[in-house]
Amino acid sequence: MVDVGIVGGTGYTGVELLRLLALHPQVRIAAVTSRADVGKPVAEAYPNLLGAVDARFVAAEAASLKDCDVVFFATPNGTAMRMAPELLGWGIRVIDLAADFRLADPELWAEWYGEPHACPELLSEAVYGLPEVHREAIRSARLIACPGCYPTAVQLGFLPLVEAGLIHLDGLIADVKSGVSGAGRKPELSLLMSETGESFKAYSAARHRHWPEVVQGLQRLAGRPVGLTFVPHLLPMIRGIHATLYARVLDPSADLQPIFEARFAGEGFVDVLPAGSHPDTRNVRGSNRCQIAVHRPMGADTIVVLSVIDNLVKGAAGQAVQCMNLTLGWEDDLGLRGIGLYP
Amino acid sequence: MVDVGIVGGTGYTGVELLRLLALHPQVRIAAVTSRADVGKPVAEAYPNLLGAVDARFVAAEAASLKDCDVVFFATPNGTAMRMAPELLGWGIRVIDLAADFRLADPELWAEWYGEPHACPELLSEAVYGLPEVHREAIRSARLIACPGCYPTAVQLGFLPLVEAGLIHLDGLIADVKSGVSGAGRKPELSLLMSETGESFKAYSAARHRHWPEVVQGLQRLAGRPVGLTFVPHLLPMIRGIHATLYARVLDPSADLQPIFEARFAGEGFVDVLPAGSHPDTRNVRGSNRCQIAVHRPMGADTIVVLSVIDNLVKGAAGQAVQCMNLTLGWEDDLGLRGIGLYP
Amino acid sequence: MVDVGIVGGTGYTGVELLRLLALHPQVRIAAVTSRADVGKPVAEAYPNLLGAVDARFVAAEAASLKDCDVVFFATPNGTAMRMAPELLGWGIRVIDLAADFRLADPELWAEWYGEPHACPELLSEAVYGLPEVHREAIRSARLIACPGCYPTAVQLGFLPLVEAGLIHLDGLIADVKSGVSGAGRKPELSLLMSETGESFKAYSAARHRHWPEVVQGLQRLAGRPVGLTFVPHLLPMIRGIHATLYARVLDPSADLQPIFEARFAGEGFVDVLPAGSHPDTRNVRGSNRCQIAVHRPMGADTIVVLSVIDNLVKGAAGQAVQCMNLTLGWEDDLGLRGIGLYP
Amino acid sequence: MVDVGIVGGTGYTGVELLRLLALHPQVRIAAVTSRADVGKPVAEAYPNLLGAVDARFVAAEAASLKDCDVVFFATPNGTAMRMAPELLGWGIRVIDLAADFRLADPELWAEWYGEPHACPELLSEAVYGLPEVHREAIRSARLIACPGCYPTAVQLGFLPLVEAGLIHLDGLIADVKSGVSGAGRKPELSLLMSETGESFKAYSAARHRHWPEVVQGLQRLAGRPVGLTFVPHLLPMIRGIHATLYARVLDPSADLQPIFEARFAGEGFVDVLPAGSHPDTRNVRGSNRCQIAVHRPMGADTIVVLSVIDNLVKGAAGQAVQCMNLTLGWEDDLGLRGIGLYP
Repeated sequence: MVDVGIVGGTGYTGVELLRLLALHPQVRIAAVTSRADVGKPVAEAYPNLLGAVDARFVAAEAASLKDCDVVFFATPNGTAMRMAPELLGWGIRVIDLAADFRLADPELWAEWYGEPHACPELLSEAVYGLPEVHREAIRSARLIACPGCYPTAVQLGFLPLVEAGLIHLDGLIADVKSGVSGAGRKPELSLLMSETGESFKAYSAARHRHWPEVVQGLQRLAGRPVGLTFVPHLLPMIRGIHATLYARVLDPSADLQPIFEARFAGEGFVDVLPAGSHPDTRNVRGSNRCQIAVHRPMGADTIVVLSVIDNLVKGAAGQAVQCMNLTLGWEDDLGLRGIGLYP
Repeated sequence: MVDVGIVGGTGYTGVELLRLLALHPQVRIAAVTSRADVGKPVAEAYPNLLGAVDARFVAAEAASLKDCDVVFFATPNGTAMRMAPELLGWGIRVIDLAADFRLADPELWAEWYGEPHACPELLSEAVYGLPEVHREAIRSARLIACPGCYPTAVQLGFLPLVEAGLIHLDGLIADVKSGVSGAGRKPELSLLMSETGESFKAYSAARHRHWPEVVQGLQRLAGRPVGLTFVPHLLPMIRGIHATLYARVLDPSADLQPIFEARFAGEGFVDVLPAGSHPDTRNVRGSNRCQIAVHRPMGADTIVVLSVIDNLVKGAAGQAVQCMNLTLGWEDDLGLRGIGLYP
Repeated sequence: MVDVGIVGGTGYTGVELLRLLALHPQVRIAAVTSRADVGKPVAEAYPNLLGAVDARFVAAEAASLKDCDVVFFATPNGTAMRMAPELLGWGIRVIDLAADFRLADPELWAEWYGEPHACPELLSEAVYGLPEVHREAIRSARLIACPGCYPTAVQLGFLPLVEAGLIHLDGLIADVKSGVSGAGRKPELSLLMSETGESFKAYSAARHRHWPEVVQGLQRLAGRPVGLTFVPHLLPMIRGIHATLYARVLDPSADLQPIFEARFAGEGFVDVLPAGSHPDTRNVRGSNRCQIAVHRPMGADTIVVLSVIDNLVKGAAGQAVQCMNLTLGWEDDLGLRGIGLYP
Repeated sequence: MVDVGIVGGTGYTGVELLRLLALHPQVRIAAVTSRADVGKPVAEAYPNLLGAVDARFVAAEAASLKDCDVVFFATPNGTAMRMAPELLGWGIRVIDLAADFRLADPELWAEWYGEPHACPELLSEAVYGLPEVHREAIRSARLIACPGCYPTAVQLGFLPLVEAGLIHLDGLIADVKSGVSGAGRKPELSLLMSETGESFKAYSAARHRHWPEVVQGLQRLAGRPVGLTFVPHLLPMIRGIHATLYARVLDPSADLQPIFEARFAGEGFVDVLPAGSHPDTRNVRGSNRCQIAVHRPMGADTIVVLSVIDNLVKGAAGQAVQCMNLTLGWEDDLGLRGIGLYP
């Protein structure tokens, strides 16, 4: 058994990590930190964990995590970068679910996250935790930067097209929609049921932090600059991300379905749906899967890729566990075989 | 007082027409037809109308409507074209909320709606009921084809750009999202709460009937061919349409905000929101307004227009009443001053 | 035209008052106060009011309201009682939508609201604004205490039974359910979409502030003590209250349907539905109506009354406008003819 | 490994069974029947099962199930009673998730389900599959009648009180609320998102089929007649049942919290929450747990029990698997350790 710690166990990604790790056959939840609830049973704060998680919250400091083999950060941006060096120094593997190690360029990080990076020397070592692209690097990583929720859905959808050089790279569009749990567990007016229920809107249309992350990822795949328009929207539901991706194909006669199928044939968590399908976020609710379909609408040389994930699983906690499995030499899907909750 | 009839008063657009017309100061609801409920009080079927609508359903045949001055068709596609000639012959103004008279070309209609048009000779006379484009023609029309819900939101959003010739017309993208009431009141599995609640998906990504209608409208505005990709999605909510529109601008330095403001300055039902805004469908819930915002995201010459309406009001019944007001010589907003229901 | 002021125009009941008053044919919105947004256009904060409300927020102090004929308090509990004496002294009618003047006994108020009452001398003068019970008193009132949302639904449901002495008064049960807008517009974790969507729970099962208010109202009707169990629940939706009321009848053979119909025959805002009906909150969404049905389930001498209202309209702003209409000598329904938004 | 069959794999309880059984460590899904989709891969119809269920639908006839050790019926009422005798004759254990074997009295069954029972001779043998009451009998049963969803929540809530004789049995009230998935996967107008979303209503207030089932269960526990009022309501959400139970206590001074805790101390799937708690349906979403809290509101000798389950798990498929585990000599929770999906 491997001892794992969770820093920030009181947000939605933290609770989701607990849900997954409590059922993982090879790990033991050794420490769950909280700034406000030290000493309180975790399952008292989150009654869905009754009978499954016995731990009590411990103080949010490095010392609480000293005996862990792996530590997950399910914290606001800017936390992991302050604690990671010490934990790594103790030989602990660090998996960050926030943004601290996602951007390779510390200047870019400072520009988008509003403060200097606390340990820029670690950025080159950090591995971007998208197994479908970086599986081998993840296997030997000791510091893993899990992708954001939107970037996971968008990069997986564009992946076969960009890798194979099938599209114009200068006018990509990602029209993305997320359930409200993606905004986290924060007491903000804009997240109230009365504000977000039965309504729909775009937000941050001109500038969103996931834009440079996606651009960085696609440019690595393409080996050259990419032009991307990225518009996020807030769905009146809790879990789920749907990315609708638009690109102009170089060869309008190409059949893209087999290209997608071939690219993901060995990927246990990516389903390429039959031609003509429309993936539904509910089918991946609570599961670590990404489901994708490709369409070529009439009247244009534009193709459309539809990509769905559960933002808290494949977009956060599940992907983090998948990365842990890889870095510990296990199968991708250990502890991640849960099936989407339909209806 | 003007006597109005409603054919098909038992679907969502029919009930919404009743809600609006019952409060209209210049009309009297003279006839509401139903195939199944003849003789039943309308308010027994729709208790929201208790105290406001005294009518009983009458038979769904032309004779029921003989004494009307105006007849609305809130029926499935293919109904109005079979009854309209007779009603017009009696001097009755006809306003169709379905698709029968939206496409000018009968061949195109047959291709998209699966049967020959029943009265192609009327197509050239029918006026497309989008007041912001065709107000004068509507004023003198006796046969009005109300636009579809998506086409209203999309055309109003692209309107200032296309009219002013500011964008490339060959790669327009409309990523559109609708509440489920847009699918009508039909006992279908795919519309169940258990199927559509807490989930999100695209549908008809490769081919949707509103595509030729939008293309026809934009081409009329532009005076030349338009290339449009149109992808509809189903929102887990009841009312509201959000169109996210993408186009490449010819002049990346142009300031588009004043162009939108100028174009809609005289339009009482279109609000151009301040720069940086994101319209929210809830703010037009139950009202006849369209709210629009323009954005230019970083990293591309693509502009983004966000356009919201209530699919049952500005996208159907409200726009039909607005057209009636115009054709009867009244103010646009008579009976349509209702305010969006927030929250 | 009558000049009205609204204190606290930034909560849900405040915005709902604005929606109703903006369309009221006999009033002018003269002042809307806000603590945080002085000078800002009201419709900028609430874009649903665009085109309908031109006012800007003014300071939240009595001087702002000096020229009003009527002032509504849509404020947290404890605000109106501090400003009402001054306004009344200026001859202004005061209508409080909060709890300050609902309980006749200042000791009881202090016990339930946690501070001494600021103007106990006004309590005996305040009229409880439930027109179906106190219409005549409201007509001549200068200080009106609008009932809470639950108390409106519960008292209207029990009213015919208690007035006519048909039930045992010692074991009444009110199982009540409310949409989340009833909790107000506050940045609290428990009101997030992620916390309240797709879920259901009771709250304050042992003690809720509407309990003494309902008991006071029912005891006034009955003329003797009443035993009431009152359990509120939070619905995963925005607007609407459903009260399910249980009482044991004295005469199991009595037919209660005609008793309900007779009692509310002259009440324009209360619909007694046909026997066997189940009122649906959606049918009163946005309207000032209460819809009621009576059932006698098998296997018991217990009867069940189902009573629905929109918590923000008949449960708050609409009832307040109805009271204003009465105190100004107008018809109950002036400005309140809006029809429930279905679907 | 044990071979299991599912009759009716296309409704919500059928798909939920597949979700649970696909992950069960000791069973193999040997047959899934369907009337309409024979030959089609199950995971094509239900994409949430992709990667987890390889089976194809087989014909809905007994021969398809001949090699099974256990057969589940996730069918409409009236199906299992026609096939069960043959399957039992082949030595197959039968677990019915519908109502066919729930009522011991065939006359009562005919009265409530509208047709004569097809195999009344089996009724006395059928064991009511509520493990918290009938665990030993279930262990040796070959025909198990799984309780309805409401009856599970209601009986578990009343259980400690009735067994210990602490309440008056003549005036019990169960005010119960269910998500719409409880109504099944049927193309009915009343189940549309546009009809059930953002709204709430009671239904079948005077007569519901779960009433005789609950009464039978409580009378068995009490050993004497029970008077129950049972009012179901439809929640605007998909999964979850909340029962709010009212009873008058014999001894108002009794402390009921320890009685509930003691009664369920050994029950792995029932959590008695700390005093003052309010269980939330989301915390058991997707899990087989029942969470219960007890309250004594002020002003009455009435106590209130709050009991929540997931209607498709502890109220259907999960409980069925729990019964299978018992009848096969396994631990209750084999394959049922899934944790509630929060948020």
